Amino acid sequence: MRRYIWVTLAFTLLAVPAGYAYVHWAKSGPGAGLYSREWKPEALHAYWDPDRFYQSPQILQGEFKGEECIVCHSAVTPGIVNDWRASRHADPGQGKQTVYCSACHGSNHQALHMPTPKVCAQCHENRVAQFMDEKRYGFPSHALAMERAVDAKHFADKPKAEVAACLQCHSVATKCDSCHTRHRFSAAEARRPESCVTCHSGPPHPDDDSYFASAHGKKYLAEAARQDWSKPLAKGNYAVPTCAYCHMHEGRHQVADKTIWKFGLLEVNPNTSGNEVRRAAWVKVCSDCHEAGWSAQQLKGLDSERKQAWVKLYRAEHLLKDLRGDNLLHPGPRERPPYPMDAMEKFLPRARIGYYDGQASAFYNTSPIERDYFEMWYFANLGAYKSAAHGDAAAVGHWHAAMDQSLANMEARAKALRAQGEAEKKSLGRRADPGRLWLDGEYTMHNREHN
Amino acid sequence: MRRYIWVTLAFTLLAVPAGYAYVHWAKSGPGAGLYSREWKPEALHAYWDPDRFYQSPQILQGEFKGEECIVCHSAVTPGIVNDWRASRHADPGQGKQTVYCSACHGSNHQALHMPTPKVCAQCHENRVAQFMDEKRYGFPSHALAMERAVDAKHFADKPKAEVAACLQCHSVATKCDSCHTRHRFSAAEARRPESCVTCHSGPPHPDDDSYFASAHGKKYLAEAARQDWSKPLAKGNYAVPTCAYCHMHEGRHQVADKTIWKFGLLEVNPNTSGNEVRRAAWVKVCSDCHEAGWSAQQLKGLDSERKQAWVKLYRAEHLLKDLRGDNLLHPGPRERPPYPMDAMEKFLPRARIGYYDGQASAFYNTSPIERDYFEMWYFANLGAYKSAAHGDAAAVGHWHAAMDQSLANMEARAKALRAQGEAEKKSLGRRADPGRLWLDGEYTMHNREHN
Amino acid sequence: MRRYIWVTLAFTLLAVPAGYAYVHWAKSGPGAGLYSREWKPEALHAYWDPDRFYQSPQILQGEFKGEECIVCHSAVTPGIVNDWRASRHADPGQGKQTVYCSACHGSNHQALHMPTPKVCAQCHENRVAQFMDEKRYGFPSHALAMERAVDAKHFADKPKAEVAACLQCHSVATKCDSCHTRHRFSAAEARRPESCVTCHSGPPHPDDDSYFASAHGKKYLAEAARQDWSKPLAKGNYAVPTCAYCHMHEGRHQVADKTIWKFGLLEVNPNTSGNEVRRAAWVKVCSDCHEAGWSAQQLKGLDSERKQAWVKLYRAEHLLKDLRGDNLLHPGPRERPPYPMDAMEKFLPRARIGYYDGQASAFYNTSPIERDYFEMWYFANLGAYKSAAHGDAAAVGHWHAAMDQSLANMEARAKALRAQGEAEKKSLGRRADPGRLWLDGEYTMHNREHN
Repeated sequence: MRRYIWVTLAFTLLAVPAGYAYVHWAKSGPGAGLYSREWKPEALHAYWDPDRFYQSPQILQGEFKGEECIVCHSAVTPGIVNDWRASRHADPGQGKQTVYCSACHGSNHQALHMPTPKVCAQCHENRVAQFMDEKRYGFPSHALAMERAVDAKHFADKPKAEVAACLQCHSVATKCDSCHTRHRFSAAEARRPESCVTCHSGPPHPDDDSYFASAHGKKYLAEAARQDWSKPLAKGNYAVPTCAYCHMHEGRHQVADKTIWKFGLLEVNPNTSGNEVRRAAWVKVCSDCHEAGWSAQQLKGLDSERKQAWVKLYRAEHLLKDLRGDNLLHPGPRERPPYPMDAMEKFLPRARIGYYDGQASAFYNTSPIERDYFEMWYFANLGAYKSAAHGDAAAVGHWHAAMDQSLANMEARAKALRAQGEAEKKSLGRRADPGRLWLDGEYTMHNREHN
Repeated sequence: MRRYIWVTLAFTLLAVPAGYAYVHWAKSGPGAGLYSREWKPEALHAYWDPDRFYQSPQILQGEFKGEECIVCHSAVTPGIVNDWRASRHADPGQGKQTVYCSACHGSNHQALHMPTPKVCAQCHENRVAQFMDEKRYGFPSHALAMERAVDAKHFADKPKAEVAACLQCHSVATKCDSCHTRHRFSAAEARRPESCVTCHSGPPHPDDDSYFASAHGKKYLAEAARQDWSKPLAKGNYAVPTCAYCHMHEGRHQVADKTIWKFGLLEVNPNTSGNEVRRAAWVKVCSDCHEAGWSAQQLKGLDSERKQAWVKLYRAEHLLKDLRGDNLLHPGPRERPPYPMDAMEKFLPRARIGYYDGQASAFYNTSPIERDYFEMWYFANLGAYKSAAHGDAAAVGHWHAAMDQSLANMEARAKALRAQGEAEKKSLGRRADPGRLWLDGEYTMHNREHN
Repeated sequence: MRRYIWVTLAFTLLAVPAGYAYVHWAKSGPGAGLYSREWKPEALHAYWDPDRFYQSPQILQGEFKGEECIVCHSAVTPGIVNDWRASRHADPGQGKQTVYCSACHGSNHQALHMPTPKVCAQCHENRVAQFMDEKRYGFPSHALAMERAVDAKHFADKPKAEVAACLQCHSVATKCDSCHTRHRFSAAEARRPESCVTCHSGPPHPDDDSYFASAHGKKYLAEAARQDWSKPLAKGNYAVPTCAYCHMHEGRHQVADKTIWKFGLLEVNPNTSGNEVRRAAWVKVCSDCHEAGWSAQQLKGLDSERKQAWVKLYRAEHLLKDLRGDNLLHPGPRERPPYPMDAMEKFLPRARIGYYDGQASAFYNTSPIERDYFEMWYFANLGAYKSAAHGDAAAVGHWHAAMDQSLANMEARAKALRAQGEAEKKSLGRRADPGRLWLDGEYTMHNREHN
């Protein structure tokens, strides 16, 4: 018996550092993330993740003082010099030092760098610390947006044009000018909803649509010009409710800790003690303008919207699982491409079910019933959540009707698949291989050769 | 013979008051509308229809003077106190009395109420009277929006989240702050299109999209900041044409009396003498900026768009009626859920046809051919109308192409249903019961248990 | 031998003038374009193409001086008089003459005309010349927008409501107030993106959506109010990048000469010497705010997006061509309506393939597989291009996924058509005529009788 304990202990002692070493090795390839040895992103990525990929232009030699940068760039790139001149960096107030280009980009023109949050933290320590604190709350969060994306299997497996599309927004984790646009870096600008909706728009996160369609958003559209955006995001300062006013109250750069429903991605018990604390934090924000009781009722309305959504999603999921259990999904496990990054799957293929078992497979090369599920889950469900959360009443109805329609389609398709399956049992067994369609389909073909 | 007259007379004399008594009884349940005994809306409804459902919070006792409300709420809900301070209520001008919170909400904190148009009419008698005058023109109209909604069978039959979604906008009938947002109640704000499009957006009434995509809307977007919105909505005062400028000319709160085409919901003869009066009223509005002849031509263009739309809609309707006449619709009358509110239908089920025979059944649980018709009717037709009316030329093309596509789909499906029907006649008669799919479908399942 | 040369020469000498004469004759009918003898546009067209169709109102006789126009129209159409008063036409500065109504519309009230670019060129010669210069670059271009539209076969073949919808924007060629809205004709207004997106919105050219969803667009939304729009569109003058700033740099009214990718309509070699010149012109514009290397990388990203799109489009096209080669398209050539304007096609019908062989047939009355191709080509492909070009990253992913989905649908449908075709070969030969569905379908029915 003793011997086994020693063996186990020795194995563990070896396995843990081996695991760390493997991850370190996996991440140190020419690309990004855990699969950095398998794929390399587009050149544009240099800008989204500068610490890893940015290379300074080599067109000019020498060390330059900040004042010198300005002289030359007033002619070369006047737009950004104008922006900088209008910024607090150029005129930080009495007794403070001007923050020149070189403070953030370095002064050696052959070794310029693009500033990351670490660079900004040299002065804005507090805000960057709040921002980084989101990591404690896991993903989705701004601070983990890049890391979790490039570590995901399906990122290595997507067409590069789409990876670039995703990472443009996920770079919110690796640079501050996603919100504070360069080179004015104006807090007043960042407080406006436009700063947020550059990324928070479109399916599967229609924050843009749902906010601007709500009474809050319409009030913003009508009143924004009269609002003084230089005021801090504090109680009583804002006549128009904005993304930042509610989600970054008092300017806190931590937006993950008030999250009750996990953005619609997970079913949660909305009544845990933790969620009651979050709920109270929301009501406190709402009560700048609304009665506390009324605000609490709105949040209850969201609980009930979520409950209704999950009833529908589970019904759809069970339907797919039953089909899979009875080997009725088409294409079957060996008829569709494995994750290219997943060696194991080549030996033990499994019928993944849309978003439920792996995201990438659900975007492309799915059978119609799985596509229905994917759209129901990823577009309609998340759209319904955002609409309910932001008070876009009409869209709640729209997205729930879309979920109902998907479910009705899925039930009809499931019935047809079962009927076909039974007919096959009676005659020739499992129907013919669907051919190379799925294995060589768009997703596979266009990605493998380009990554 | 005489006897029959007396019997008829006696029956009538009894039936009329009995009818009134029944309606009174039906409406006096815990819920809303004619079916108030059968369903109760969500808690949120208290706010949409306060006279019926609002209950004052009980957290504080006592009578308070207006000044006292302000003292306390400056700390508790500073946002709305700021709004009020910026309003004419707080500073109504020389010789007029300040309108404090208590004037509208009452002064007993345990018996507060939410103001309805009746409350506003205490001072704004004229505008509320104009608004109420819409009732003479029937529905759709602002003044009847709540009543006609909650009296409808299918409102009692919908999931509550969707009822809440509908009623948020239909509450325009029961409270004035749908347009004059609290607590500034600014006329200048209400004159802007944003006030209207909070509700007038999305299918089936894309007023938002169609206006903002038109030349009118684009001019608004570019010029709104230069416009003085405090000016009355009178000829020559506005460089930008807005919802209110055209539909509420000179500030009249009656928007139903210029309606020629019934919002695309009904086929009308556009050339009746009544419609010629309405047409002249439109041309008068347009001629602030446009030549009268040109304006009249635009309206003629709308006549011809409507004519084209109705040709398509009737073709679709006849197609469905023929299928129904030949018992070829699937599911058939007994294979789909009756209105839960309609006891008669349980005994005499009939194959309803999409929007044509009843709205609710068309949103969910319809066969594909009926869904095509519903979308053609409710989304494409109404979208085409709004686009034509608001000058969004590209969308007229888009929606008419969508109608054509629906019609093509319906013709193909009808052909398949007929072929299937004939095959069945030759073999086993009417095909097998489609099972519980439609009877227990989404619409039925999710609603019955929650209402 | 000699004789043949003479015959050929004589024939050519006759054919060329005969061709010119035919075109002249064809264009001189009551309608517009090459098919002017076959169709007449709606009355509204008078406004879109005034030189051809506008007729002065006859309600007033007499010659009027400019001052007199103003006196009367201040009462009749005050909105446009206000606009004019705010314009430089009313107050053109020291020593310059006021430009009254009569200068552009004429002074005989029975023979008023609507001004075309020719009229504007009396004073704004330079800008109109730049605008007209676009003709050298072919279509798409503003200057050829009307001519190429009304000369097209399918314009004569469309429902009039849709022709009107198209021509409203295509009238950019025939009048200057598409961008400089009357009667202020403000350059400051025309510089804003709203002026452009009145037309440049929606499929198949979502410039509106793609710009406003990009970082550029969001910056515009947040900063537009602070921008001085009276400044020329020159380097360093604009903190917000707009349509005009990039596409009409330094105010040049020629927007066709920087075009590399032909708006996604044609596959191009992006590396020709001509395109390298255009590329350098783009980088020069970008470098107001961006590093030159970075800008060049963005353009390379667009090359690669286009390459990926064309791989998909060709795969779809080959799939359709193979089906056509094997006579497997349904409906076949004789089962669908010929172009009504094309007499030849009645005798030699050919299976057109969506956009590939002729645009009109692809909008309506197509079989599902051709509709997939059309939507893939016309909506998804062009949407992907615009999104990539304008920096709307999420939409690039969206539209490429839509292309993939279309391709997957097409592959599935092609397979089914082949299977059906083989079954038919074994039994009864080509399947039965699909009936009158396609020949009398929506497109045909609703158009022929109305044109």
